[in-house]
Amino acid sequence: MPPEYRIKFLPIDRTYPAEKGDNLLETAMQAGVHINASCGGRGVCGKCRVRIAGGSVGSLPNPLLSGNDWAMGFRLACTSTITEDVVVEIPFESQVDRSILTRSAILSDLGSSAANEALAVRYGLDPLVARYYCELPKPDIDDNIPDAARCARALSAKADCGEPMFPLGVLRDLGMNIREADWNVTLDVAPDTCEITRVTAGNRQSAHYAVAVDIGTTTVSAELIDCRALSAGSMVLASSTDYNGQISYGEDVISRIMYCRKRRGLAKLHDIVVSTTRRLISDIVRDAKIDIKDITHIVIAGNTTMMHFFYGIDPKYIMLAPYIPAATAFSPSGPESLPLMPGLDARVYSIPGISSYVGGDIVSGVALSGMADRSGITLFMDIGTNGEIVLGNCEWLLCSSCSAGPAFEGGGITFGMLAAPGAIEKIHINPFTLEPMILTVGRARPLGICGSGLIDLVAELFMARVIDRNGKFSLEKQGPRLRRGENGMEYVLCFASETGIERDIVLNEIDLDNIMRTKAAVYAGCTVLLKSGGIEFTDLDSVIIAGGFGHSIDIEKAIIIGLLPQLPVENFRFMGNTSLGGARIAAVSREFYTKTADIARAMTNIELSGNTQFMNEFMAAMFLPHTDDRAFPEVIKMLGNR
Amino acid sequence: MPPEYRIKFLPIDRTYPAEKGDNLLETAMQAGVHINASCGGRGVCGKCRVRIAGGSVGSLPNPLLSGNDWAMGFRLACTSTITEDVVVEIPFESQVDRSILTRSAILSDLGSSAANEALAVRYGLDPLVARYYCELPKPDIDDNIPDAARCARALSAKADCGEPMFPLGVLRDLGMNIREADWNVTLDVAPDTCEITRVTAGNRQSAHYAVAVDIGTTTVSAELIDCRALSAGSMVLASSTDYNGQISYGEDVISRIMYCRKRRGLAKLHDIVVSTTRRLISDIVRDAKIDIKDITHIVIAGNTTMMHFFYGIDPKYIMLAPYIPAATAFSPSGPESLPLMPGLDARVYSIPGISSYVGGDIVSGVALSGMADRSGITLFMDIGTNGEIVLGNCEWLLCSSCSAGPAFEGGGITFGMLAAPGAIEKIHINPFTLEPMILTVGRARPLGICGSGLIDLVAELFMARVIDRNGKFSLEKQGPRLRRGENGMEYVLCFASETGIERDIVLNEIDLDNIMRTKAAVYAGCTVLLKSGGIEFTDLDSVIIAGGFGHSIDIEKAIIIGLLPQLPVENFRFMGNTSLGGARIAAVSREFYTKTADIARAMTNIELSGNTQFMNEFMAAMFLPHTDDRAFPEVIKMLGNR
Repeated sequence: MPPEYRIKFLPIDRTYPAEKGDNLLETAMQAGVHINASCGGRGVCGKCRVRIAGGSVGSLPNPLLSGNDWAMGFRLACTSTITEDVVVEIPFESQVDRSILTRSAILSDLGSSAANEALAVRYGLDPLVARYYCELPKPDIDDNIPDAARCARALSAKADCGEPMFPLGVLRDLGMNIREADWNVTLDVAPDTCEITRVTAGNRQSAHYAVAVDIGTTTVSAELIDCRALSAGSMVLASSTDYNGQISYGEDVISRIMYCRKRRGLAKLHDIVVSTTRRLISDIVRDAKIDIKDITHIVIAGNTTMMHFFYGIDPKYIMLAPYIPAATAFSPSGPESLPLMPGLDARVYSIPGISSYVGGDIVSGVALSGMADRSGITLFMDIGTNGEIVLGNCEWLLCSSCSAGPAFEGGGITFGMLAAPGAIEKIHINPFTLEPMILTVGRARPLGICGSGLIDLVAELFMARVIDRNGKFSLEKQGPRLRRGENGMEYVLCFASETGIERDIVLNEIDLDNIMRTKAAVYAGCTVLLKSGGIEFTDLDSVIIAGGFGHSIDIEKAIIIGLLPQLPVENFRFMGNTSLGGARIAAVSREFYTKTADIARAMTNIELSGNTQFMNEFMAAMFLPHTDDRAFPEVIKMLGNR
Repeated sequence: MPPEYRIKFLPIDRTYPAEKGDNLLETAMQAGVHINASCGGRGVCGKCRVRIAGGSVGSLPNPLLSGNDWAMGFRLACTSTITEDVVVEIPFESQVDRSILTRSAILSDLGSSAANEALAVRYGLDPLVARYYCELPKPDIDDNIPDAARCARALSAKADCGEPMFPLGVLRDLGMNIREADWNVTLDVAPDTCEITRVTAGNRQSAHYAVAVDIGTTTVSAELIDCRALSAGSMVLASSTDYNGQISYGEDVISRIMYCRKRRGLAKLHDIVVSTTRRLISDIVRDAKIDIKDITHIVIAGNTTMMHFFYGIDPKYIMLAPYIPAATAFSPSGPESLPLMPGLDARVYSIPGISSYVGGDIVSGVALSGMADRSGITLFMDIGTNGEIVLGNCEWLLCSSCSAGPAFEGGGITFGMLAAPGAIEKIHINPFTLEPMILTVGRARPLGICGSGLIDLVAELFMARVIDRNGKFSLEKQGPRLRRGENGMEYVLCFASETGIERDIVLNEIDLDNIMRTKAAVYAGCTVLLKSGGIEFTDLDSVIIAGGFGHSIDIEKAIIIGLLPQLPVENFRFMGNTSLGGARIAAVSREFYTKTADIARAMTNIELSGNTQFMNEFMAAMFLPHTDDRAFPEVIKMLGNR
């Protein structure tokens, strides 16, 4: 056996063994120590900077590390190998901070609670798995039907579920369970397949719970749902959110699908997303002080790639033209085919999706928004990593994914980050001095820039003529904050001394190109959908902005850069995490769950990649705010007034 | 670690390690060496006699071993413990011989082939799992629905199975499978649940197989069925039969249920019956030279206890009053909940049963017999370990199990054995000299007496007045073959020198009592059923004798001892292994499978244990042929003529 070394991680003070030649990032993951790593460990994003505080690692100089960094002991974890005992200090900006997630979860909840109330009343309480308390007559020689038949007979008096089936896992303990319960049992029944999914001692009808889960590429959120409650205020008993453990393997779905090509890559990514989900369920079970055995079912919404990972299905054809998923709808599964965690015999349902890039998370949101029930036309936008958009009303629905890229989640942006404490979220720039005013999340020392900050920054620099209508740094403007850096021109938002990371926080030409591409892709996607539906932006009744990101963006600045269409601000509605909200209602309403399937069937997917019209619209939108001045009359007027 | 000893088994010459204190019978089982053991290892049946040919074992003298036996090195394996290296010789009579099973399987097949033909024609070909060949259109950007949806769409043009579901196991490889098949695939579909159970490359419609299995307490039989054939001659492509590996753990269901109380006892018995089944499937797959992936489904028939073991369900309440099984009907299961063997993704169906002691094997037989379709009344008897009987016609069906005991399978009889080579199967006794004429199976040197031999022996001794009408040895008769042994009076059928076991083969008082109880239980069961149905034996249209045992019995002698009612010989029909026969038809006919469920629902079970009427009838039948002379007028007349 090769000798073992001891790797100590600071500041969390955890020591983990490793062998000579082991990769440092991999070791950290195994040790459960989170280090940001957006590029999937390819040494190109520079986010997994760590400082070697004792001992040394095998590592080559990297252009992403300055000579000074190198001298101070900074290395990229993803390209370092273990050669001896070592102490690794993880700088704050490389740590994953979870506190912000809870904040955005609460916001989401508030955002969708009104819709929630309306839907719960409309659909009524009819959980996907029902609970019935049955006092079974004790058997005697004149009534000695099998235990399973005795349960079925008692149930038939309470519910219409034909001849119920028992999964083998339930049947195996049935005899013992009902006798230990002295024949008074609670039966969990899935009416869709007439399956008795669990038998519990005594009357547990007053403790009937479900879990709603939203599996996002970046974060996973779970809520504990009281299946007997109808209003959002009382139905959500606990909630928890965490980063999807997969982010260490790549920031977007494509890098994760790439990772699957490695040996056991799929199994690893499956395990990770299941264990993130498991941890969240443990959290909410603990917080609400309930018995895990009272959770009868779980409803999951997620994008198509995440659902593949969750179910352990190879997603490789999703990334290859013509972009085919194995499935977008999944049959309910039990612990026999999908063991999630010990003691949790809950049946797992998922909200069906549409295509490789429009998943159940979007269908869930569309169902929650009620847009498919209204005659007025709604544009539904979820600007996350991908940028999914849905257009339509009660008669028709079109959807698309516009490969926006993760710029607004911090991906591909030198100092981009999620909206965690220290993220610059609001920016104003003096158009004459070019000096900025910034606000960070949690008012901490700045560490980077989050999505809303990037929108503000580009809009302000554009209004200050630092950026021209082509979305390039203008050469007209000069000042102490404008300089030529390694990646072309850059604007210094914070000097190193003001930051928490001891480096200048800048926006450079490459960052700007990425933001331009993202905003152009989203807008072009909307344009193509609208043209397909034969309508104009002005025909829209409302624009719904879904996703945690939405909350903090400044609508007017998003219009200035041409990310959102120019419409009256009151036409925009933030709905927060609609994916989770839809899963929540589905958990307590079979009719709503059926509705999601109806919506999935009704939606027409318009494939944008390789679509000529999209490419034309995209090119037209690679301009600030847009090549078509008529679409942004107010912005053009403001430009004239500068 | 305790030191390891080497245990060598002869004549098969297999060496296996054991630790000090290990049980010898247990070690033999682990080594895969079969030793007869009927009492479940309690040291009371004396069947696991082995000779220690080298070294010694820890063992106490046992009344079942004579002083001479002991001196020769004979020990009971079940009560011997390992103390050193040892060579163990297994005497022929303690070995399990498989050759006879094939013979009876062939007989069974012939016996039921006529019924088979009739049924196959009536029900028509519609296998429980269907195969469809689909040439899927290759996807492009205008037709990029998910792989699963593509399969479903192609299928909908060929079969009416709604929105098919994909088990996760199938979905996980779907993308790769259909691409490797270049989009031309065979889909296996279970119409009952609309599940696509497997996807195979190319057109496999011409290779569509099922397996029918009969899991008996003593033997397990399997047949490979061609799902495209209708006649018995061509539908059975291969068959194989073996002892149920569980016999080493007890001869009857009760001793096996007792064994389950041991730690991991249930898991062990489940593993054993599954591995016996697996071995048989391997045999028939090899014999027929087919690809195991072309087996789409398996249909299993067995008694209720065996089905519990097969599915891994604790059967303990079956043996406790009021005798409740966990279930008698089981939902179809796939490899995810019931992994049988690698590569075999077949769906497993089972024929539903009625009660703890009337199982799916009987329902299968009743369905095969066609008695539930006829207006004439049939008495269906399966005299195995238990003795199950069914009475009725197309309008009503009554059933019972009469706890006959395993006497006719050799259980509880000093020299009892199954109908293997060397078993005495036909006996005639000279009423004056009391000298016997015997015939053995395979005409080998006698080793013991099988069921038909026991019936002959008791009938002959009764006609010769050696046994009186009370079923006791008469003290009037004397002769060299009658003597007082350790267990009361005994009749010597073969002297040691004539046998293959070098011991006198005798029938003693205890054996006789066991046979009397068995025959009385069967007859009393029939009587109670007939009285419940309000009919007389003379109202019976026919009596069907099912089970391998039936073939060799002499109807007239069975009537003489009052095991069978006195009816014209032509009213009796042997049907062989009807349990397997029914499973075979169910495999190719969904309608027949549904019929078995209808029959199971229609049958009324009459519980005999603790039933006063049964006890009265049982006491009345503890007489030769019976206390009621009027029921056996011909036998009474013969008795007068002696």
